[in-house]
Amino acid sequence: MKLAIIGATGMAGSALYKESLSRGHEVTAIVRHKEKAVSLFGEDVKVIDKDIFELTRKDLEAFDVIINAFATAPDKAYLHLDLAAKLVAMFRETESPRLFFILGAASLLDENDNLFLETLKHFPEVESWISIPIEAYKTLNFLRSIENVNWVGVSPSANFVAGGATTPVIGKDHLLKSSSGESIVTSETMAIGILDEIEKPQFIRTRFTVCNQ
Amino acid sequence: MKLAIIGATGMAGSALYKESLSRGHEVTAIVRHKEKAVSLFGEDVKVIDKDIFELTRKDLEAFDVIINAFATAPDKAYLHLDLAAKLVAMFRETESPRLFFILGAASLLDENDNLFLETLKHFPEVESWISIPIEAYKTLNFLRSIENVNWVGVSPSANFVAGGATTPVIGKDHLLKSSSGESIVTSETMAIGILDEIEKPQFIRTRFTVCNQ
Repeated sequence: MKLAIIGATGMAGSALYKESLSRGHEVTAIVRHKEKAVSLFGEDVKVIDKDIFELTRKDLEAFDVIINAFATAPDKAYLHLDLAAKLVAMFRETESPRLFFILGAASLLDENDNLFLETLKHFPEVESWISIPIEAYKTLNFLRSIENVNWVGVSPSANFVAGGATTPVIGKDHLLKSSSGESIVTSETMAIGILDEIEKPQFIRTRFTVCNQ
Repeated sequence: MKLAIIGATGMAGSALYKESLSRGHEVTAIVRHKEKAVSLFGEDVKVIDKDIFELTRKDLEAFDVIINAFATAPDKAYLHLDLAAKLVAMFRETESPRLFFILGAASLLDENDNLFLETLKHFPEVESWISIPIEAYKTLNFLRSIENVNWVGVSPSANFVAGGATTPVIGKDHLLKSSSGESIVTSETMAIGILDEIEKPQFIRTRFTVCNQ
């Protein structure tokens, strides 16, 4: 399939890029700095190096799936919602490309059905980063209101860290725990969970979550 | 003040255009068809005739207030949300222009605190038009999540019809009734309510409603 990854040089994006290539997909990295993509993925990397807010429908319409692994600084966290709204507006009333959003864990529910975001708000030094989970949660709520766009969201587990693959455990709206008892997913496990969903779609206009085994 | 009206040739927009001019503001009509604006407002009308989704920040940044009186067919009702998201993304982290959204009455509460949208859903032949109030309600919910844009929303009363001015009665989140017992606002009363709010802002990042006296 023809895949595009927004933010391909980040932790999530680079694992996705490698997993996509290893499965034989045709992958394009959408990045701010081409040099970083070349240094990570080699000279053959296909790149669109353009500010994401300058992307046009023409740049993106030929892809089967656009994976949004965009990351930004906390003081610009609202760009997550703006980018989602831009992509949604671009692909109304069509099934392709499918829009795949990486959304953060804050919108998941804990074992008492409480929003994990509320727990996060009591973490230390929360002011410096809480805007990111807040805007990711707004983005999911925005997407949930969208009926004529082919979107899907994925939340990592509570801890989303760089690391090797395990067999992904898939859930829906609740925080999962791995066999170690920790709610954790590594970037390579996440990439497998996402590519599995791309190849065999099971979650249509909804959100799922991935955890390490 | 420098005002722009998106959809200036519609029922709400044309009353707003005339009220703005009569108060001495510098008004620009943003319309699809310049001829229609000229035939309604005369040769001197200032026009931006451009598809609203092609508007750039540069086209709009010099205005003090942008009034969004955009209207569309029910099968394209989602464009209300897309346009709001586009305007919001354009004017993050700034107080000017102020973005003024006309939102419909469905998001108001009735005397039992029930959402008027739920009542509307039981109206006859509702399938042919319910998408408009649904998307307007989504738009308000979207706006309510936006903290770093200078936005305001206004809902008409249950019946929003072309007609002459009365003294506007202003409310917040509940459907109002005029002295006749009917929840009705005329286009000229609505225009007065909106211009009053533009000249003396009282509702910041929230929604208010206007009713005939």
